[in-house]
Amino acid sequence: MFRRTLLITALSLSLGACATQLAEPPVADAAKPATAASKRAPNIIFLIGDGTGFEFISAYRYAMSELGQPLASTPFDEILVGAATTYPDDDTWVTDSAASATALATGVKSYNGAIGVDSQQHPQQTLMEKAREHGWHTGAVSTSQVNHATPASFFTHHSSRKMYNEIADSFASTRYGDKWSFDVLLGGGMSYFNREDKNWLPELEAQGMTVVDNYQQLDSVQQLPVLGLFAPVAIPYAIDDEPRLAQLTHNALRLLSSAQTQSGEPFALMVEGSKIDWCGHANDIACAVHEVSDFAQALQVALDFQKQNPNTLIVVTADHSTGGLTLGQGGEYAWYSERVMAIENSLEVLVAGVLERSRDEWRSYLEPRLNLPLSDEQWQQLLATEMSGSEDKRDHAKRIHAALVKVISETTRTGWTTSGHTAVDVPIMAIGPYADQLRGYKDNTDIAKVLLQIVR
Amino acid sequence: MFRRTLLITALSLSLGACATQLAEPPVADAAKPATAASKRAPNIIFLIGDGTGFEFISAYRYAMSELGQPLASTPFDEILVGAATTYPDDDTWVTDSAASATALATGVKSYNGAIGVDSQQHPQQTLMEKAREHGWHTGAVSTSQVNHATPASFFTHHSSRKMYNEIADSFASTRYGDKWSFDVLLGGGMSYFNREDKNWLPELEAQGMTVVDNYQQLDSVQQLPVLGLFAPVAIPYAIDDEPRLAQLTHNALRLLSSAQTQSGEPFALMVEGSKIDWCGHANDIACAVHEVSDFAQALQVALDFQKQNPNTLIVVTADHSTGGLTLGQGGEYAWYSERVMAIENSLEVLVAGVLERSRDEWRSYLEPRLNLPLSDEQWQQLLATEMSGSEDKRDHAKRIHAALVKVISETTRTGWTTSGHTAVDVPIMAIGPYADQLRGYKDNTDIAKVLLQIVR
Repeated sequence: MFRRTLLITALSLSLGACATQLAEPPVADAAKPATAASKRAPNIIFLIGDGTGFEFISAYRYAMSELGQPLASTPFDEILVGAATTYPDDDTWVTDSAASATALATGVKSYNGAIGVDSQQHPQQTLMEKAREHGWHTGAVSTSQVNHATPASFFTHHSSRKMYNEIADSFASTRYGDKWSFDVLLGGGMSYFNREDKNWLPELEAQGMTVVDNYQQLDSVQQLPVLGLFAPVAIPYAIDDEPRLAQLTHNALRLLSSAQTQSGEPFALMVEGSKIDWCGHANDIACAVHEVSDFAQALQVALDFQKQNPNTLIVVTADHSTGGLTLGQGGEYAWYSERVMAIENSLEVLVAGVLERSRDEWRSYLEPRLNLPLSDEQWQQLLATEMSGSEDKRDHAKRIHAALVKVISETTRTGWTTSGHTAVDVPIMAIGPYADQLRGYKDNTDIAKVLLQIVR
Repeated sequence: MFRRTLLITALSLSLGACATQLAEPPVADAAKPATAASKRAPNIIFLIGDGTGFEFISAYRYAMSELGQPLASTPFDEILVGAATTYPDDDTWVTDSAASATALATGVKSYNGAIGVDSQQHPQQTLMEKAREHGWHTGAVSTSQVNHATPASFFTHHSSRKMYNEIADSFASTRYGDKWSFDVLLGGGMSYFNREDKNWLPELEAQGMTVVDNYQQLDSVQQLPVLGLFAPVAIPYAIDDEPRLAQLTHNALRLLSSAQTQSGEPFALMVEGSKIDWCGHANDIACAVHEVSDFAQALQVALDFQKQNPNTLIVVTADHSTGGLTLGQGGEYAWYSERVMAIENSLEVLVAGVLERSRDEWRSYLEPRLNLPLSDEQWQQLLATEMSGSEDKRDHAKRIHAALVKVISETTRTGWTTSGHTAVDVPIMAIGPYADQLRGYKDNTDIAKVLLQIVR
């Protein structure tokens, strides 16, 4: 219960903070008459919840609600307009994040692993590239490393998502005249931009890029372009740290709208709730709900901006759903949201914590962090995962992880069916100009086509 | 492959048949000027896919499509408008069909098991009762017995869904002056209306009700009221027999619109794809896809009617999702739709078939009906379910069923998490007058409230 209070408080505080900072938001349209404004292409804020199928939204809503009380509202409620198919151009119906992000960025289906290229590995123009071509401001925010599949597919072209260094190099070196492909790029990934064989940072700064590596610095940045890298790889999970996406989104919008006020040109911003997917892969329900909360707070920041700047189209979707999450398991007609919200850490942190300790400390370590009414049999199952003599350390970690997933699933009645993705259709939310074009069942490429036609 | 061809052919044939019969559909609005027509309350066709969460629509679409070919369109595509929360007024987020049907019929949340009553077991006015009160024509079609939870909650009031005989008695005996609560009631359930302690049929016929028990008879009925009971309990699964819901829906619309032409009063019809849920409970993916197809064909009949009679509101939703279906299992990025479509029978039929045979006939019985590339190990798993000496016959059937679910899930990469329901939100589709009021995230009671306000 206290955990939920904490989360709700965190949400209020975070939104409160943003509200204060946005008390006098930059109203880019204000100076121009409505008729002129309505003819101008709208700003685009494209939020992608990686892995965030309908079931993740349901889980988030019920986790924020209490039985017997009015159901919590969410920033998704008013803007749901449809659903999208996500299949790749491959020998399967189940997409990965690269093929799906490529579809969402270019309007072209491709193979799993493709970054901004089609099935023949030919580069396809992305939303951000078309925006640049037309003089727009561009940006991306993610909680993964910025060179991960989703942001990468909006700015770069590579035959494989695994080419992390090459993708970082593309971000750092691709130029449009005197500009980079992005005006603002915020997320994790410092270890790819400052690595043993190449440190891009001094070079970028010498060329006029502001590079920051902590949130306080970012808050005081007043000018584009800016590259913010806040973690070596991904930003920590919201459940283990602080939610970050709303603050990053606020700063991206602050800087882009300020640039817009000066130039008169629209902007396109992609915001990814990257790690909802990672929690899904880990079959980690508490982790997932907190990441969706982080994503929802970022959406709220975007919605507040849109209210002040109505010539802004917000589109929210997912690239696919992950983990085969369902809210019901083992025949019981229940999903114990309050138990999910009682869990204090991600499985990644819990497994690492267990591995650091001797077996007789496991229960005292796990008990106050899980906060679950486990049976003696379930504790025995967890404690039975002690390391066998010949076992590889990673195999041991996997066994502990699997045992935790099992008891948490049984106790909260959370179902998972895979460590991978599923082919189930994902939500489309939209508000602002052109939102009506996204109603009903669409393909993920249709979403990109609607966005690409706006850029002119 | 041939199975898919068969299904598509069946769809075309069935729709073709309906199209022929509907070639000169009754156009109830035709004689009146548009302005007068637009002021009249619209007809309501409320289609409920029992258990039909988003994942069932995705499964159906991919099952009807082929990799590398353009994706199949479905009757759901153009009319998706939102999603609904389904939680009951109970100590759980997971509803049963009774509480959810009560919410959809009355706009009031109740406890799991409630039929048209609130948490204090007080009867609540249903959509069909309000329609009757205002002189509308009413009806229901289902593939379950007509006294099952969903149709029951639209016409009757009982403290428990298990009171099947009492519910049948309510249908047979509740009168509004010289009328029953329904004009047309089509589905299964003969054994509840003609039972040892009471045979309602002669009485009903003496009072003016046409009672039919086969489809040919129904096709020739020209006048309401009509009770059609086509099976002792539920109508057989579409995968084992013929799809039936489109034909029943066509006949219900034919009779109701003919009555409307005579009286000038609108009608309200509830159509339930009842057994999608039953396949979900059985974790039977092939069964589920064929039932969704049956439901989709019924929706197409309704859409064709609506095109000819635009002053008709069609709403489609589910009462909940069932089984925790996902299209992805065991880590592989795949869902083998063509393998699903190769399966010839429901698990119910397959298990019964196995039980009738000696163990050495099992493989030759199952192999041509499953049509799956099972490994030797999987065959061994199936054959290992032979009956142990002391085992109860039902327990034995359950073990065979579970073994079949396991190998089908592994081979088709279909995930299931429960034999019960889930709390995941379900789709809302709508077209016609008032459809806009159902956009975005709604609660299931909101859907009823929109429909109830239309009846006047």
